[in-house]
Amino acid sequence: MGDARTLVAGLDVGGTKTLAVAVDPAALDAAAGTAWPEVPEGPEVGDGDAAATGVPGIVATVRRPTGVGGGERLLASTVDALRALARAAGTTVDGFAAVGVGVPGLVDRTAGTVRHAVNLALDDTPVPIAGHLHAVARAPVVVDNDVNLAAVGAAVALGCRGDLAYLSIGTGLAAGLVLDGRIRHGAHGAAGEIGHLPIDPHGPVCECGQRGCLEAVASGTAIAARWPSDDGPLTAASSLLAAAAAGDPDALVVLAEVGGHLAGAVALLAQTVDPAIVVLGGGVAEAGPSLLTAVRDALRSRAARSPVLAAIHLADRVALVPRGIPAGAVGAAVLARRQAAPGAASPAPEPQVTASDAVASDTS
Amino acid sequence: MGDARTLVAGLDVGGTKTLAVAVDPAALDAAAGTAWPEVPEGPEVGDGDAAATGVPGIVATVRRPTGVGGGERLLASTVDALRALARAAGTTVDGFAAVGVGVPGLVDRTAGTVRHAVNLALDDTPVPIAGHLHAVARAPVVVDNDVNLAAVGAAVALGCRGDLAYLSIGTGLAAGLVLDGRIRHGAHGAAGEIGHLPIDPHGPVCECGQRGCLEAVASGTAIAARWPSDDGPLTAASSLLAAAAAGDPDALVVLAEVGGHLAGAVALLAQTVDPAIVVLGGGVAEAGPSLLTAVRDALRSRAARSPVLAAIHLADRVALVPRGIPAGAVGAAVLARRQAAPGAASPAPEPQVTASDAVASDTS
Repeated sequence: MGDARTLVAGLDVGGTKTLAVAVDPAALDAAAGTAWPEVPEGPEVGDGDAAATGVPGIVATVRRPTGVGGGERLLASTVDALRALARAAGTTVDGFAAVGVGVPGLVDRTAGTVRHAVNLALDDTPVPIAGHLHAVARAPVVVDNDVNLAAVGAAVALGCRGDLAYLSIGTGLAAGLVLDGRIRHGAHGAAGEIGHLPIDPHGPVCECGQRGCLEAVASGTAIAARWPSDDGPLTAASSLLAAAAAGDPDALVVLAEVGGHLAGAVALLAQTVDPAIVVLGGGVAEAGPSLLTAVRDALRSRAARSPVLAAIHLADRVALVPRGIPAGAVGAAVLARRQAAPGAASPAPEPQVTASDAVASDTS
Repeated sequence: MGDARTLVAGLDVGGTKTLAVAVDPAALDAAAGTAWPEVPEGPEVGDGDAAATGVPGIVATVRRPTGVGGGERLLASTVDALRALARAAGTTVDGFAAVGVGVPGLVDRTAGTVRHAVNLALDDTPVPIAGHLHAVARAPVVVDNDVNLAAVGAAVALGCRGDLAYLSIGTGLAAGLVLDGRIRHGAHGAAGEIGHLPIDPHGPVCECGQRGCLEAVASGTAIAARWPSDDGPLTAASSLLAAAAAGDPDALVVLAEVGGHLAGAVALLAQTVDPAIVVLGGGVAEAGPSLLTAVRDALRSRAARSPVLAAIHLADRVALVPRGIPAGAVGAAVLARRQAAPGAASPAPEPQVTASDAVASDTS
């Protein structure tokens, strides 16, 4: 059936749910460089026609529970999500040209495995997610870190052709970088792992053993420590943002502090890699627009004190993903699409250069 | 004379002196991927033969005063350095295939101009350094920021084929990034400008208006505030390192603190862009090997407290440029060499990609 398959599938495996999208690559290309509209959220959308979702290129979206508690459960729920997506898109589970998967944890992109994902209760045993899905989908399967793929999806959904940093604010905190049109993985796959950078030597002790790490002061977990909820960090963040939006003075104080620390994370990304924009994403950012407002307020306040900061206009370079767009799943589909492109069954090789002529100038 | 010209010239314009090297591209390529030896420092070395300098590819080095006090003086001293280099290399000022120049301040790489360089007493009027040198050298001239070019030179001198971050510790503090074989400039030319990132909200006030910036706690100026000298920050740093090496307990305390803050800068670079190595350079790093020791000690101490840090082995990923290698001038020559390569009179264009298929996976 090879040539007849055009749709690509993207899966974003989260700690409670797996989001999946089916994408039409031609429609995706046609919309390149333009921002996408917001999309209605729901358990299952689409009938194989992009008009059903209202978003260019996305012909179906589904949401399924993630199987947490070991590799077997994870693999089973991932296959379940792919089958449900195929039904929603009007095809079969082996009807996709390629499949992309974003997962938390340590990903071996070459082997297509994931391990050590705390949210998924995975220990150090590699789970062969690409191999397992390939046996079902009979198509190329690519796996990458969920935050990296959310950065890719955010870039596409925002119509961003330049560099982008995606700051994922959920239970934890990390960033994904798209530089010169590529995911920046780094020499050890650790690029963007800013959660355990200390920004206050007198701050709270972080579970990593340091003090005042970004994750300890600006994540959902950090919010829950200041604004407790019985239902976990993301509910705590929603509750805080709702209370702040209603004018609760205590909530406003906590939100301003968190916004200040997140402003520090934005500045850190901007002054290190200098992306065109920094996108706030993850469960905390999605909990309400007042988080973006708080971060922008903090950036403006910093700029008012520092001409150096004023010159780089950080408040104007922060954005949210369009509401309802599943950035991680879209990014996974975009990655899969590259696999599906004719003649590109594996990623295109980097240009080979010598040390002496390579390290030169970019053209940006 | 075009085809007969093979040597390229690299100039590193500093606040007091301009360092220039003449480089043989073929010898540079032959040595690619291997670390260079240390080089004897002196006012002028070379006779057109690399054997005279002991370093592969470098056939001559000269050092001349920089003209400080406006554009005219800067341009005159730059031409003077190029003429002196030509003499040392056994050629004429128009005998180079290309010229590269590293300068502090705001560089417009397209226009070949520099402005707003405090060290050079340049205001906001762009100084046409490329145009002026081109009229004399009759060869392509490229200009870039001095720290970026030092990063390039460090990568070549260390035989580093992977990613590299260069942490320049002088009067101020900034970084240069070579990622995927290219200088990372960023969306606004601000990549690597980490000097004004705060790492301690209770730290000393920085001249930028914030508190506890890296530059305020870990630069030569920060050292001079703790270990004063009448002869400026770099002399203060030399004096501190000498006293610490002699066992002075007060000096050891100050050095450990500075080393701790620099360890923070190394971690910041490693956890954001994840380069293979972080190179310490600039006048403070060159003042003595005990600075590297202090930074490594601080990184080991942090790793002992944090398994997350222990896993990324930062102490093993810090290095110095081989002693006596003028990294900035070498980097300028390497950049020039790209201009001089046949068919590469301008930098090679980046691969053009669409938003949807570009943001995919790198191959590292």
